[in-house]
Amino acid sequence: MKFGGTSVATLDRIRRAAKRVGVEVAKGYEVIVIVSAMSGKTNELVNWVGETSPLYDAREYDAVVSSGENVTAGLMALTLQEMDIPARSWQGWQVPLKTTSAHGAARIEEIPTDNLDAKFAEGMKVAVIAGFQGVSPEGRITTLGRGGSDTSAVAFAAAFKAERCDIYTDVDGVYTTDPRITSKARKLDKIAFEEMLELASLGAKVLQTRSVELAMRYKVKLRVLSSFEEPSDTAGTLVCDEEEIMEKNVVAGVAYSRDEAKMTLVSVADRPGIAAAIFGPLSEAGVNVDMIVQNISEEGRTDMTFSCPTDQVARAEKAIMEAKEQGGINFHDLVADTDVAKVSVVGIGMRSHAGVAAQMFQSLRDEGINIKVITTSEIKISVLIDRKYMELAVQALHDTFGLERSSS
Amino acid sequence: MKFGGTSVATLDRIRRAAKRVGVEVAKGYEVIVIVSAMSGKTNELVNWVGETSPLYDAREYDAVVSSGENVTAGLMALTLQEMDIPARSWQGWQVPLKTTSAHGAARIEEIPTDNLDAKFAEGMKVAVIAGFQGVSPEGRITTLGRGGSDTSAVAFAAAFKAERCDIYTDVDGVYTTDPRITSKARKLDKIAFEEMLELASLGAKVLQTRSVELAMRYKVKLRVLSSFEEPSDTAGTLVCDEEEIMEKNVVAGVAYSRDEAKMTLVSVADRPGIAAAIFGPLSEAGVNVDMIVQNISEEGRTDMTFSCPTDQVARAEKAIMEAKEQGGINFHDLVADTDVAKVSVVGIGMRSHAGVAAQMFQSLRDEGINIKVITTSEIKISVLIDRKYMELAVQALHDTFGLERSSS
Repeated sequence: MKFGGTSVATLDRIRRAAKRVGVEVAKGYEVIVIVSAMSGKTNELVNWVGETSPLYDAREYDAVVSSGENVTAGLMALTLQEMDIPARSWQGWQVPLKTTSAHGAARIEEIPTDNLDAKFAEGMKVAVIAGFQGVSPEGRITTLGRGGSDTSAVAFAAAFKAERCDIYTDVDGVYTTDPRITSKARKLDKIAFEEMLELASLGAKVLQTRSVELAMRYKVKLRVLSSFEEPSDTAGTLVCDEEEIMEKNVVAGVAYSRDEAKMTLVSVADRPGIAAAIFGPLSEAGVNVDMIVQNISEEGRTDMTFSCPTDQVARAEKAIMEAKEQGGINFHDLVADTDVAKVSVVGIGMRSHAGVAAQMFQSLRDEGINIKVITTSEIKISVLIDRKYMELAVQALHDTFGLERSSS
Repeated sequence: MKFGGTSVATLDRIRRAAKRVGVEVAKGYEVIVIVSAMSGKTNELVNWVGETSPLYDAREYDAVVSSGENVTAGLMALTLQEMDIPARSWQGWQVPLKTTSAHGAARIEEIPTDNLDAKFAEGMKVAVIAGFQGVSPEGRITTLGRGGSDTSAVAFAAAFKAERCDIYTDVDGVYTTDPRITSKARKLDKIAFEEMLELASLGAKVLQTRSVELAMRYKVKLRVLSSFEEPSDTAGTLVCDEEEIMEKNVVAGVAYSRDEAKMTLVSVADRPGIAAAIFGPLSEAGVNVDMIVQNISEEGRTDMTFSCPTDQVARAEKAIMEAKEQGGINFHDLVADTDVAKVSVVGIGMRSHAGVAAQMFQSLRDEGINIKVITTSEIKISVLIDRKYMELAVQALHDTFGLERSSS
């Protein structure tokens, strides 16, 4: 059971979370509880580090920002003890949760189970773990990146072969789309790992992407649910293997991303290796290029379009102009359009259903929305459109694919 | 160099403290810096633990309340790095600072020097240590009791055979008495360990008592100074061996304690073992008995008077009445006087100077102050008086022993 920052924001909320743990203990389970820092605490620490040292030593960053989780882990253990549930806290180095030395974004290498198992054997019912943190081979504290407690939780579930991994957060599950955009958005009872990965990286920020990858690899039954709702067996959304989803809609959800920019190199001299000449410098400059489209070449020249986050446009322009000056690429004009948004439909059902793309384009045409760029993968179709049509597009696609109705 | 909570209360103050460290590094020193939590942080954590669990598990208490020091240690290391001083932070378990398992008030067992020495050999100039915390033989986090960072600092100074141990705080040294009581109070340049121990335990709360004991045992040159004053070689007060104090006043200082209560068992049946019969139950009840006076026995009965902190009077009365009911002691009446205060004169010079007690009593008599109880040790004389005369007594004794003048 993992409780996020809003679920442990006050002593009272910690008590409410502890009661949920108590329900599972009463059922006879041994429970590993992963806690985040009280909401706001980690941001405060991150800001202090940034103010102290703009180009900080990531090892010291980790030592500072990991401390919020230590507080909630101890308080949660005390709260459980007050309920007469044998519990104790563990910090990352005590487990130990062994990670790489990539401070600030370390990867989990191993979680030995003997320390916790020994305590469970002695009668402990709940192990409370400070999430987000681990220890490097050098014995220094590491952190797993923002949202890393989700990854801690899945890693513990995998290491201890847990029956379930329940992620308690401030939303009650994964929705077919953002309920703020259409009231027809529906909570999904189940979603496949692959779909969740596409939705998470597309902006449905419910779970850290790495935690979903890890759950997929180790077949961890992952459930996202709200700590502010009454517990029930159908609460939340189960993220699972697609085989476990009997009745599927072709499309599981509609995602969007507001902060996309479209950049076009007009009339590029087309020659073998031109893509590498453009995207090499962009990658070196740290620009996260997402979609790439190349028009058909005419008379040896072509248009090359790509998208990247809005706040990286200046960096992208600089990298491309430098490459031009150094003679690496030759083009007539560079046009940046920062008034675009990305809308995507995601669903493992696409694999077996033809015509999803056609249906999507038809729907957008019916609304008079012009498509600027298209990319597709096996289970996703994304389009760039004018930002002002974003909400309309999401609503139209949600209707087109009948997402307000459950297929079961 | 140890910086207390007020000296690291904000990022700006951490920078000021780091500058002082930089001055020592520029002189060619390698420095171990011990930091407390930002002022207020530890109290917040202590309150959270108390609210969560009134009879808390001390192991979880330690895990929670030690986290404030981790934050300041990391921030101090980052601040030093920004000044181009090679520095890193260590938490208690990383050093490791090994302690007993007496959570909440653990005693230091050992500080291995190899980890820090290896880093100093590699060119590190400053090791920043999270004060107040250590690790038990079971691998759990321990704390050294409130004010424990002073003890951390002295222990590190001893283990690393440091040239000095500078304790930066919000007062500029140790005074002959509380300057709020008399403006004639004078900062001492030097004070002997034994005197400091008597003054600290008597209420001059500058240093944790244990840190002074430790410094005395390991001959650590301990200096108390303000982090809010300009650095200088004569700043603060040096706490040292009495041999190092060439010119001494007979009396070093006048201490007081406001929250004392006097309790008298009137007409106790005097018999061998009566003291044990009274003070055994008091000790078991957790009453800190300070002064004890027994009158001369007449016709097999005597009066027995003792003092204890005001807030322990109810507990003391309960323990004594229970002992009476069980037949352990027999007396006519139990009288508690909570309107008293203790005033003490302290000085190693008393060992070689007779007449200090007489001078003290004369001075109090001249002011018309009645003495209720007297106790003496080799270097201290304490009296209980009516609380309303406390300030007057301190002022009179300060004058009598000429403390406004330095003897050198």
